[in-house]
Amino acid sequence: MAAGDATLSQYDWHTYPDVPLTPILTVALNSFQELGYHGTTVRAIAAGANLTMPTLYYHYGNKEGILFALLDIALDDFYTHIDLCLADADDNPLHRFENYITTVALHYTHRRDLAMLHDEYRFLGDTLREKYLTKRNLVQTKLEDLLQDGITAGIFDDKDPHFTARVLLGMLGGILDWYNTNGPLTPTEIADRYTHYAVRLVTKHTEA
Amino acid sequence: MAAGDATLSQYDWHTYPDVPLTPILTVALNSFQELGYHGTTVRAIAAGANLTMPTLYYHYGNKEGILFALLDIALDDFYTHIDLCLADADDNPLHRFENYITTVALHYTHRRDLAMLHDEYRFLGDTLREKYLTKRNLVQTKLEDLLQDGITAGIFDDKDPHFTARVLLGMLGGILDWYNTNGPLTPTEIADRYTHYAVRLVTKHTEA
Repeated sequence: MAAGDATLSQYDWHTYPDVPLTPILTVALNSFQELGYHGTTVRAIAAGANLTMPTLYYHYGNKEGILFALLDIALDDFYTHIDLCLADADDNPLHRFENYITTVALHYTHRRDLAMLHDEYRFLGDTLREKYLTKRNLVQTKLEDLLQDGITAGIFDDKDPHFTARVLLGMLGGILDWYNTNGPLTPTEIADRYTHYAVRLVTKHTEA
Repeated sequence: MAAGDATLSQYDWHTYPDVPLTPILTVALNSFQELGYHGTTVRAIAAGANLTMPTLYYHYGNKEGILFALLDIALDDFYTHIDLCLADADDNPLHRFENYITTVALHYTHRRDLAMLHDEYRFLGDTLREKYLTKRNLVQTKLEDLLQDGITAGIFDDKDPHFTARVLLGMLGGILDWYNTNGPLTPTEIADRYTHYAVRLVTKHTEA
């Protein structure tokens, strides 16, 4: 199960307790954001964390290992919230869809720093990149399933859940382009708006 | 006016003739994509373009100048298409909105390589970053205007064009996450689908 479970399961899925990061990962996260993956040196990470290079290599292997560890922690936290939000919904496909969209939007606000790292996955080597993408792809396939459930139930008007899930996740990912904690809207308000848009996007424009 | 005008104005806005790039910019674009901005050296760009370092510095100043030149060329091409697509629409706010969404979607498919560079703008220094963002922000403000026109005309059901424009542009930007030229859908088919979704997102779910 996801790494954050022990901490998070005590909480409602709308809450985002701090993700525990080792000093190495905290320093690396800041550096990757500021300078990019290639602009960050292992030496600078070790210095920033007040650790020796051998200690760093012992724990994470190399810079790629550090990036992967951060990406994996972000995914574990993401999936923990996803599991909880679906467990909290009844069987109505619309309600399950709404909770899912809401939790993705909350991830992109509350976990912005970790979520931004996704852009750097392309610098992982083949093995770890494949491992990361396989795990992350569940965000997409789970949403496809929820869309299909709504289509089957006659609630959603959509012909291509695979494509539509991409569209929706792209829309949500756009939050990272503009969100900052000083903005006028809270994460909850932002998530509510995106959920409203997402429902519009997949439901029929009916002549009732 | 935009730099690409002389070439493009002979064409329909649905067409995307190759953007002429100097050898330096062609090499730099490939390198920025493969290695990121910080992973790219000016020396490697000069070598790849078969030019001396002084020649490169003479034309672009430094690596930042090269990145800015590419971002600026991408924007000029983008705005040329935007101008043409709006000139091609009648006064109906819905039609203008549809053309706008379509041209943004076409930009993110036909111009994927250049559009991907946007992620690197954060590495520009203050002056050039501000200059780039000011120019790029017109994509957002123009869409806000189009949304406001549709709201005023009673066609769109939306209360916050600023926010909604962000949502729509985020949705369209998501194309960069998954589009590749080997996929089953053409740029035109993709643009049609996104335009359909965008119209759904901003129009009333009416009881006609």
